Amino acid sequence: VSDGPVVILAGGTGGAKLARGMLDVVGGENLVVIVNTGDDIEIYGSYVSPDPDLVTFWLADRIDSRGWGLEGDTFQVMDGLRELGIEVWFNLGDRDLAICLERARRLQSGERLTEAQQALASALGVAARVLPMADQPVRTRVQADQQWWSLQEFLIRRRGQGEVQDVDFRGRGAARPTPEVLAAIADARAIIIGPSNPVISIGPILAVPGLSEAIVASSAPTVAVSPIVGGAIVKGPTESFMRWRGQSLDGAGIANVYAPLLDGIVADEPSAPLPMLETSTLMNDPESRRRLAEQTLSFALTLPQ
Amino acid sequence: VSDGPVVILAGGTGGAKLARGMLDVVGGENLVVIVNTGDDIEIYGSYVSPDPDLVTFWLADRIDSRGWGLEGDTFQVMDGLRELGIEVWFNLGDRDLAICLERARRLQSGERLTEAQQALASALGVAARVLPMADQPVRTRVQADQQWWSLQEFLIRRRGQGEVQDVDFRGRGAARPTPEVLAAIADARAIIIGPSNPVISIGPILAVPGLSEAIVASSAPTVAVSPIVGGAIVKGPTESFMRWRGQSLDGAGIANVYAPLLDGIVADEPSAPLPMLETSTLMNDPESRRRLAEQTLSFALTLPQ
Repeated sequence: VSDGPVVILAGGTGGAKLARGMLDVVGGENLVVIVNTGDDIEIYGSYVSPDPDLVTFWLADRIDSRGWGLEGDTFQVMDGLRELGIEVWFNLGDRDLAICLERARRLQSGERLTEAQQALASALGVAARVLPMADQPVRTRVQADQQWWSLQEFLIRRRGQGEVQDVDFRGRGAARPTPEVLAAIADARAIIIGPSNPVISIGPILAVPGLSEAIVASSAPTVAVSPIVGGAIVKGPTESFMRWRGQSLDGAGIANVYAPLLDGIVADEPSAPLPMLETSTLMNDPESRRRLAEQTLSFALTLPQ
Repeated sequence: VSDGPVVILAGGTGGAKLARGMLDVVGGENLVVIVNTGDDIEIYGSYVSPDPDLVTFWLADRIDSRGWGLEGDTFQVMDGLRELGIEVWFNLGDRDLAICLERARRLQSGERLTEAQQALASALGVAARVLPMADQPVRTRVQADQQWWSLQEFLIRRRGQGEVQDVDFRGRGAARPTPEVLAAIADARAIIIGPSNPVISIGPILAVPGLSEAIVASSAPTVAVSPIVGGAIVKGPTESFMRWRGQSLDGAGIANVYAPLLDGIVADEPSAPLPMLETSTLMNDPESRRRLAEQTLSFALTLPQ
């Protein structure tokens, strides 16, 4: 077995929670999280990286109970914008904004997105590596009701409502996995696809040209943790995206989206034609996050590679 | 006498206080303040206009007792930046930042600086027109101890210390007075140079090619209110700038800097070879601000044009 890092692919909250559990299992120095940047948005003079920051805040034990942003953050700047008559559709806390302003400053000074995220994660005391999937911009866009939306606008302004008609990862053709991402995948002890929306959270990562190929080429076992808990999605509009992909909302559907990458799957009901670990996938407290991470890693390491 | 606006040229706090007093005398619809933009700085993803905002906050009765920024503002974003290990040398409150982020957004969307400031002043309930001296960037730079500083860095990082060796208004050659500024000067009932630093607060305004000429061409009487109160400067490093200009720190020195624009001067001691109003120039409460504004306007309107 490789002594390389455990690599988790993460988008939304499920992947971030699993990463936090894995931190307890293997420690920050052995953990790499490759994160979706398709939701990134430049707003308020800042560069917001919702998924990388979600993972970073979870790993720093700073995530707020509302499910995003920093614990106990204030919203003075947003209140100030509202006072100026501006419709604030994208809410960002003050300390969150500080992070995103500093990220923008670093990018403008010539740093790669990977370097900027590394500096911010370090400043927040995170030892694990939180790697953007690519340094080039990839932007997830969703078509619903004949209209194209950026992902944040679709999720916030439309509240994720409406039948998904198309999904596009704009800029993916010019994007490449970073050297850090490729090295982590090549050296990985195990690669775990976190329980996030397969289409819009994990999909953009796998859409970066060369990234899926690198996973296939890696000698590490690759498993997915199903985002379906008790037959339903814990958070977010996964169902309509799976329907658009023509897949069922169960382990078999999840496995189909990720095939041929997978060596196994972790889910709470038997449903996929793959080596499987059947276990509870609910992560509602630190112990359940640690347990699922530990079981998933142990399972992965038993698989033939 | 013209029924046009009273026009005040303003930079720092003295000019802003006089403008606030004049607001009580003539009302917002009759008041135009032409403001120095040489201190403007792009920072934190925002566009900060220190002098135009100082005037705007004074006119909105929102100025904080610390002498800058919005009353009761919080500093969460700056605290957040410090938490990331950043040396915050330029302090900006959260609601102040909201204003400066919105200004940057408007400029990026193609608005002129004049239009952006107008929108922000309106949102803060200011009826008077607060006009940037030019829409093009002019940046005041100061040489002290053989080193060049932006004005904000000189005032904040060096605390205005050190012998001033040179002053430069970078970009002035390409700057022009805005149509709004030229119209206000042409139509003015009186033009009043506020009691601010003649070199770095008023100097950049008069350095915009064509602006001094417009004042000379205007039929309005032009008077300066001396920033010297009881033989000293109330606030800021005016003395070293006047020394660099080779001028004494008294009414005669002030008059020399502004000649040949002036038809008269307002000061608290007789010293200039010009028609003069001798009165207290201290503005430490609303009544003294209103009184000085009223006396200055009355004096200006008695002068031969």
